[in-house]
Amino acid sequence: MSRCLISHLEVQGFIERCMTAVGTKPHHARSLAEVLVEGDHRGHYSHGLNRMDMYVKDIQTGICAKDGEPVVEKESVATALVDGKNLLGPVVGNFCMNLAMKKAKEVGIGWVVAHGSNHYGIAGYYAMQALKENMIGMSFTNTSPLVVPTRGKECTLGTNPISVAAPSKDGDSFVLDMATSAVALGKVELHERRGDTIPEGWGCDAQGTLTTDPKRVLNGGGLVPIGGSEATGGYKGYGLGMMVEMFCGILAGAKYSKNIRTWKVTDRVADLGQCFVAINPDNFAAGFNDRMSELLTIQRGLEPADAEKPVLAAGDPERMNIKKCEELGGIPYHINVVNYMNECGKRVGVSPLLPCDKLLPDQ
Amino acid sequence: MSRCLISHLEVQGFIERCMTAVGTKPHHARSLAEVLVEGDHRGHYSHGLNRMDMYVKDIQTGICAKDGEPVVEKESVATALVDGKNLLGPVVGNFCMNLAMKKAKEVGIGWVVAHGSNHYGIAGYYAMQALKENMIGMSFTNTSPLVVPTRGKECTLGTNPISVAAPSKDGDSFVLDMATSAVALGKVELHERRGDTIPEGWGCDAQGTLTTDPKRVLNGGGLVPIGGSEATGGYKGYGLGMMVEMFCGILAGAKYSKNIRTWKVTDRVADLGQCFVAINPDNFAAGFNDRMSELLTIQRGLEPADAEKPVLAAGDPERMNIKKCEELGGIPYHINVVNYMNECGKRVGVSPLLPCDKLLPDQ
Repeated sequence: MSRCLISHLEVQGFIERCMTAVGTKPHHARSLAEVLVEGDHRGHYSHGLNRMDMYVKDIQTGICAKDGEPVVEKESVATALVDGKNLLGPVVGNFCMNLAMKKAKEVGIGWVVAHGSNHYGIAGYYAMQALKENMIGMSFTNTSPLVVPTRGKECTLGTNPISVAAPSKDGDSFVLDMATSAVALGKVELHERRGDTIPEGWGCDAQGTLTTDPKRVLNGGGLVPIGGSEATGGYKGYGLGMMVEMFCGILAGAKYSKNIRTWKVTDRVADLGQCFVAINPDNFAAGFNDRMSELLTIQRGLEPADAEKPVLAAGDPERMNIKKCEELGGIPYHINVVNYMNECGKRVGVSPLLPCDKLLPDQ
Repeated sequence: MSRCLISHLEVQGFIERCMTAVGTKPHHARSLAEVLVEGDHRGHYSHGLNRMDMYVKDIQTGICAKDGEPVVEKESVATALVDGKNLLGPVVGNFCMNLAMKKAKEVGIGWVVAHGSNHYGIAGYYAMQALKENMIGMSFTNTSPLVVPTRGKECTLGTNPISVAAPSKDGDSFVLDMATSAVALGKVELHERRGDTIPEGWGCDAQGTLTTDPKRVLNGGGLVPIGGSEATGGYKGYGLGMMVEMFCGILAGAKYSKNIRTWKVTDRVADLGQCFVAINPDNFAAGFNDRMSELLTIQRGLEPADAEKPVLAAGDPERMNIKKCEELGGIPYHINVVNYMNECGKRVGVSPLLPCDKLLPDQ
């Protein structure tokens, strides 16, 4: 009985209470709570409630601004440069994505970049906003250095995610939301805690050599770009990570590459760069949704190599996780995470705390 | 003495003569010749002179149109949908990229997609056009199915390349030009011819299992997406391949996925979908080129894991190849390729043929 079930609304309310208790504006707290719950709902627990204490601390210490709104600094009918004013990442993200969608409705595309931003949760959240308007959405962010470029041995790039969402038919969609590293740091940490080795192609040691020992990756080594070694195309993942940095830190005039503060060290403002794009299929060939649906159907209908593992499309694993939550009637959380966050809630004096009465049998 | 040196202009003139001999309009022939020579110049021999006979045949058989110009079907200040009218890929590509750049100069971004196109050579050629105007360029194309989606065993996606070019200072730049498969088919073919095995993570057999035997990849198997197996993140490469298809076949209303004709089988028009983007850094934070230069300097200045292998940025291997050609005073070609193309030239009655008097010592 290590897991308990908590409803979407209970988690969201709790995060909002914790954030407003330390002085966050209510609608900023709501923006953050929505992104974090959506992360958990989609099964990306590393980007959900699990990180709430970081955001609470950012507001408490004043390293992140609690007041103000993002400002448009430069604008055309199709583009904008936004100053995020050091506000919470989701506040900046929602502002920029809404602006991009407004422009895309008018001229077919909106390309908006922001400097002065902070961690914004799952990149897919912003890309998916465009689906509500039957548009294509994209979102990119730079992050603290955790990835070693091909041939190097020092971390100079973040996991710099790429997210792209495209609408199909009947609410179906394609949602790619991926780090440009082979895996997230959390996966390596998980293997280390369990005492397991990691597959070759996830990370390297301090000498830049690929290793299957998670300890070596975490102590002076780093994640490697998608593709793994140079022989298997790791330089492509490295190039994609650089592309994301170019769209974010470089285009927006934010911090970039190894000039971004170290992961988990909040000694100075993050000044992250982020990029948000909306594209209106109506400006291109008619019948987008039908073709998108057929494209997804072709892949999902393929005979799998292993009968137990159906061929999926990007976004399907998350869709399956959401369905599981709906069947259970809530989001399953590990008791330790709930207790930890309730301690955090007590410290800032909120009530009620997260309920942990609906225990789930162990998996 | 298996290689000979031919000047850039000699190769270009020869390709133009061969193409016009079969009825291609002179400026269309020039567009094609320029892209192919640039492919060789950058060291991507698989996308250069080596493919000329395919284009000659496409015009001879009439499977590709020799007359007409691309047409804008739908347009906003920032977007356009183009009918490539089944013209040569480079004719469509240049038309679309020029249009994207014109829009980017006016409103900061131009996003142009084309249906009814054909093979357009290296994707990087079009992205790099934007560098001349100090803009960011992107180019994507779908291609004949050669890649097996993660968990599948049938080829339903092309090698669907992503190219992104961004200007730095003093003529320097970042130029990513990558297939979304782990490697190009040509690399597997080369290993098969040599009798070598391939690294795990390049391709799979007809059962969808990763294999190190190039024969199995070429006979009923297929290339796998960047990232290789599911455990090492192959689903990310698969997602990127789908993203490119979404920007190309789906957005443009061209053929897509397994509906694209089989590679090397030109029994029907290709109707490829392609996407061209230009972004003007002037619309975003001032100082783009300086930051881009610093980003490249950080990576190139890293201490390499292996002292013999410096850390590079995307575009550097091609820059080194161009420098080598300049030092040699021409592009080195294998005699067999020159002879083969001269036979092709003779058949269509052109003269002069490619010179092969400047022999190079074996490597």
